[in-house]
Amino acid sequence: MQGILDLSPELEPIGVVLAERLLGVQARFDRQLESDLPPVRDLCRHVERYRGKMLRPTLALLCGMAADDRAGVPMGERVGEAHEMVGAVCEMVHMATLVHDDVLDDADVRRRGETVNRLHGNEAAVILGDYLIASAYHLCSRIDSHTALAVARASAVMCAGELLQLHHRDDYSLDEPTYFEIVERKTAALIAVACELGAHHALGSATKDEQRRRETAAAFAAFGRAVGVAFQIQDDVLDLTGEEAVVGKSLHKDLEKGKLTLPVIHHLAAADERTRGRTLRLLESVTQGHATADSVQALARTLKDTRSLDHARTTAERYIATAKAALGTIAPGPARRVLELLADAVVTRDQ
Amino acid sequence: MQGILDLSPELEPIGVVLAERLLGVQARFDRQLESDLPPVRDLCRHVERYRGKMLRPTLALLCGMAADDRAGVPMGERVGEAHEMVGAVCEMVHMATLVHDDVLDDADVRRRGETVNRLHGNEAAVILGDYLIASAYHLCSRIDSHTALAVARASAVMCAGELLQLHHRDDYSLDEPTYFEIVERKTAALIAVACELGAHHALGSATKDEQRRRETAAAFAAFGRAVGVAFQIQDDVLDLTGEEAVVGKSLHKDLEKGKLTLPVIHHLAAADERTRGRTLRLLESVTQGHATADSVQALARTLKDTRSLDHARTTAERYIATAKAALGTIAPGPARRVLELLADAVVTRDQ
Repeated sequence: MQGILDLSPELEPIGVVLAERLLGVQARFDRQLESDLPPVRDLCRHVERYRGKMLRPTLALLCGMAADDRAGVPMGERVGEAHEMVGAVCEMVHMATLVHDDVLDDADVRRRGETVNRLHGNEAAVILGDYLIASAYHLCSRIDSHTALAVARASAVMCAGELLQLHHRDDYSLDEPTYFEIVERKTAALIAVACELGAHHALGSATKDEQRRRETAAAFAAFGRAVGVAFQIQDDVLDLTGEEAVVGKSLHKDLEKGKLTLPVIHHLAAADERTRGRTLRLLESVTQGHATADSVQALARTLKDTRSLDHARTTAERYIATAKAALGTIAPGPARRVLELLADAVVTRDQ
Repeated sequence: MQGILDLSPELEPIGVVLAERLLGVQARFDRQLESDLPPVRDLCRHVERYRGKMLRPTLALLCGMAADDRAGVPMGERVGEAHEMVGAVCEMVHMATLVHDDVLDDADVRRRGETVNRLHGNEAAVILGDYLIASAYHLCSRIDSHTALAVARASAVMCAGELLQLHHRDDYSLDEPTYFEIVERKTAALIAVACELGAHHALGSATKDEQRRRETAAAFAAFGRAVGVAFQIQDDVLDLTGEEAVVGKSLHKDLEKGKLTLPVIHHLAAADERTRGRTLRLLESVTQGHATADSVQALARTLKDTRSLDHARTTAERYIATAKAALGTIAPGPARRVLELLADAVVTRDQ
């Protein structure tokens, strides 16, 4: 996790394996998108620049290492080709949603560069997203049918979550249960499947016994799901408090697009009638035009009065605790330790 | 093929099996899109209304029947579950491209009803398209890995073709070889895979010997590819000469979006300098605003002078002859006969 996780010396060997395998993920990613058509090649080269935290491949690799509980086997021998492929597939599906999201959000900046829609137009961005999805499934069906099925199911769930979110746009009465229903589908499902498949393809003892393999994979899926929800909450917080130069993408898009985030939902439920009315007027003015620095600051101030940002942070931390607890049945070891550190970093990151 | 193919009495038994199996395709299609979320359900119900000619499922079923050369085995016993699933998958991928195309084309009418983007907005349409693709792959990975791989590959090729087409937008020097490169990817690849997989999953003797199975599937793929190109050319012709009430979708979108079709490409290459200049000015006026009935009629008239519509029709017919020739190694029989009739109907249809 470039930029969000520094490993202590005793965990460094995992960092080395991770870095090496992530290069493998990138190589597979790029190779899968190769095309004989120059315009397709140009667009794909643009997408390669989108590559950021590589959260999903990192999780697939770490879960593979942690699920393999053979004593004394070096980390580098615990994960293989399948993990690199799963990592590349999940990253590609994720990238497709970023490309499409940027079209829907009219976003100009992503990973500190111009978005595909900004540079090449909405049409190219929509089709490029479709090309990424098709390429992801192509790579996926070369692994095995269990993996193909799991990724396709997670992708469908993810889209359903986005449709649910869209349905609740500008819905100022959106409650927390519905918010979590959206987030578990939209963000957590794909992260969960990356973790699950990482464990499923573990090369070590967990894979010997089918029953145990399933249980181990389910534990990692639960870990991933909770990390995914926490990740989204932190994104919500950063959308309100972050700086575009640090976060590296267009901010306040949630507000402008009428997508209620956890801090705002909490605030609207907790505020007195008068404050609530003022916040609603503020939100409406933001969705009607572009969010200005002033209006976002005013919103952040009023959210402070109801401790709504704190509420969001505490909730994210609770999800991280749930994530760690899900790994309770997994043998302790350095890979599990890095997963726990990574989970912590998800809610403390500023990018 | 509702509306474009009437079968003579001796071929009617095939029509009966086809109609029954197409109901199976529809049921699988609808079941795959089922969701516990009401907003997702509503959007999917809208898509069900999009269902039109069901060309791809029809081809998968007919190719399955034709590839099975066991004497005396009734048509109803030559195709099974896998054909219905392949049909539903190809139709779902196709539907996804229609939903996304309508966003890109700003189209209002599809299959005589309002488009998803028109009724629910571009955002819902983009995500719904993604949901359809993910659902198609989900269904697909339940068949077998050969099928999943083939469908994913065809989808990636299809997107690459659309990107190539987009790259050549407003390119008035586009030549026929590039046009066919676009069409073979954009339209023919998915139709070819429907035919190929129909044959691949044939229940009869062709599947006994792996070598023969591959050869048979390749013959049907070649048939589908040629039919697909012819289908697109006929679409090009209808976009210029059809009536919206008959064709059932927004017309002249190719012209407005600067996509050069075969008749126009031929005309620009065949016309004298002065006519060419006049046509270019006409095309530019159309892409800058909406095509009016007058401007389209003027264009159709000028295309007549260079016999460019005739050229397109003749080319389509040549592809149909190629398609039929590809079936030369397939045992003659009523299913092959219906495939040939269907191929003819593709270029004589007015919808």
